[in-house]
Amino acid sequence: MKILITGGTGFIGRKLTERLLKAGSLLIDGVRAEPIEQIVLLDPYPGAGVVQDARVRLLTGSLTDADIIGEAVRGVDLVWHFAAVVSSEAEADFDLGMQVNLHGLLMLLEALRREPGRPRLVYTSGFAVFGRPMPELITDDVIPTPQSSYGMQKAVGELLVADYSRRGFIDGRAVRLPTISVRPGKPNKAASTFVSSIIREPLVGQSAVCPVKPETPVYILSPRRALEALERAMVLPDETVGPIRIIPLPGITLSVGDMVAALERRAGAKVAACIRWKYDPEIQRIVESWPSAVRADRAIALGFRGDTDFDSIIEAHIEDELNGVVPNV
Amino acid sequence: MKILITGGTGFIGRKLTERLLKAGSLLIDGVRAEPIEQIVLLDPYPGAGVVQDARVRLLTGSLTDADIIGEAVRGVDLVWHFAAVVSSEAEADFDLGMQVNLHGLLMLLEALRREPGRPRLVYTSGFAVFGRPMPELITDDVIPTPQSSYGMQKAVGELLVADYSRRGFIDGRAVRLPTISVRPGKPNKAASTFVSSIIREPLVGQSAVCPVKPETPVYILSPRRALEALERAMVLPDETVGPIRIIPLPGITLSVGDMVAALERRAGAKVAACIRWKYDPEIQRIVESWPSAVRADRAIALGFRGDTDFDSIIEAHIEDELNGVVPNV
Repeated sequence: MKILITGGTGFIGRKLTERLLKAGSLLIDGVRAEPIEQIVLLDPYPGAGVVQDARVRLLTGSLTDADIIGEAVRGVDLVWHFAAVVSSEAEADFDLGMQVNLHGLLMLLEALRREPGRPRLVYTSGFAVFGRPMPELITDDVIPTPQSSYGMQKAVGELLVADYSRRGFIDGRAVRLPTISVRPGKPNKAASTFVSSIIREPLVGQSAVCPVKPETPVYILSPRRALEALERAMVLPDETVGPIRIIPLPGITLSVGDMVAALERRAGAKVAACIRWKYDPEIQRIVESWPSAVRADRAIALGFRGDTDFDSIIEAHIEDELNGVVPNV
Repeated sequence: MKILITGGTGFIGRKLTERLLKAGSLLIDGVRAEPIEQIVLLDPYPGAGVVQDARVRLLTGSLTDADIIGEAVRGVDLVWHFAAVVSSEAEADFDLGMQVNLHGLLMLLEALRREPGRPRLVYTSGFAVFGRPMPELITDDVIPTPQSSYGMQKAVGELLVADYSRRGFIDGRAVRLPTISVRPGKPNKAASTFVSSIIREPLVGQSAVCPVKPETPVYILSPRRALEALERAMVLPDETVGPIRIIPLPGITLSVGDMVAALERRAGAKVAACIRWKYDPEIQRIVESWPSAVRADRAIALGFRGDTDFDSIIEAHIEDELNGVVPNV
């Protein structure tokens, strides 16, 4: 079995690679599949995150390069497509966002269409497909009204993945991910990057900027639950997914202030004081344009699950990223 | 004022051109705009439909040709974008549909973005953006779940037009048109072509094939109301349209059997007998996948109106296309 992970050296790609290598094979459609022979990581940034394993092959290149995409998909069975220009960057540089998030996806879909055996694709979308005006509660049936170019590109991607699947070119599944927190690594250009950095940095004694008001609600999913969901989205039988290929994932809603309170409960006031509240009206506007109250009935019926509370998310982050120890407590 | 109509030699382009030339200018945002100096008709088929007028310029070419698109948009103020690969054709030839309905639209949007003055665009989408599973009643808030490549391409187009507008590259408005009936001219490759031909052909004593069952419901709009709507979509002020750029239009719902009954009422049993009922399960499947019960609250609030009954639609067709006379009655 050959696997491709685009954006494979990013944090979620790295964690998924480790998980897959450890498992050795997947239970697909309820049946134990052939062992994983190769995992191709396609990423423009080789990064420090490449897992050292004979089964891993790094392809350094961009989704704007048809040749490298063609090479990446050759003989592939399963594809996780994470590579994207993130929200703030796609808003600041429209052409770059279109090139990667739309035209890059189209090139990938066309390359997969030419492969035999209808490769299976998990496409990662997000709740940025929604924007105001929208209902207060987002259910599976709410119409996407993106108010960012990133959100538009993700909504378009969902439609493309669904139609390529309907036609039998691929077997695609589009998951809408909540904001992932606590994301390890460095801040990126996503408007949501603070949702992780205000926890991650203080826990190692570094300062972090919170650009939004404490009462701002966010809809989040932990890395552990995100990885489970990304695997589940891949292994569900085609018939179970059905004609609607979009699966909005369950998360939990809480305010930024609640997150900080949980941090203080776990690590003390000194740690929580590492957060500098530096209001940025543009980030506030973008984050407020995303939905916070979500009911993901369809995903729950399909066996996906969110987190129970933010205290457990912090604890899991300390276990997974800090070997169970908060350095400066 | 310079106007571009893509698909300009098709029936709706021809009728709109005549209407615009007759008016001489438009009442835009409630203000009388400058006189219409030029109407460019961009169409791959020169056709017989080109209006003879010094203000009309025909550009024969396709939406897949960036040079001709660039020429077509130079200095343009208003664009009606009708050119498209229709439903059955886009389903039979996926690549052609993608090339024209998606990549052609992208080229047009990029060309308009480079023009000064934020050109105004009316983009024609349709209710084919919906497909089963969907609710029985389609309101403005129902999520598009296209089950055809044409429907997917139109849904993607709506999202693109909305984001190009939000960014200020264009001032776009996407209207979802009901099936137009009675469409003059010849049958085309749209799955819905029978919705016009079963009325149009019998009225001139020719036979027409009806490929669906009489109880099949259709959601239709007459050419007269369609032209009014296409003009209204262009002249509404930007602020009135607001952040949601998609306007699903009001039509009327009736069964194919009801349409034939109205034909018989107006033109007699002999005319209605020109219809040959030749069931085609594939056409039945496609037509049934479209919504039939629609409530277009937003458009009605914006002053758009549908037809009152099908008898008036037949009468208008006879007036507009047959000089008020049914030849063989």
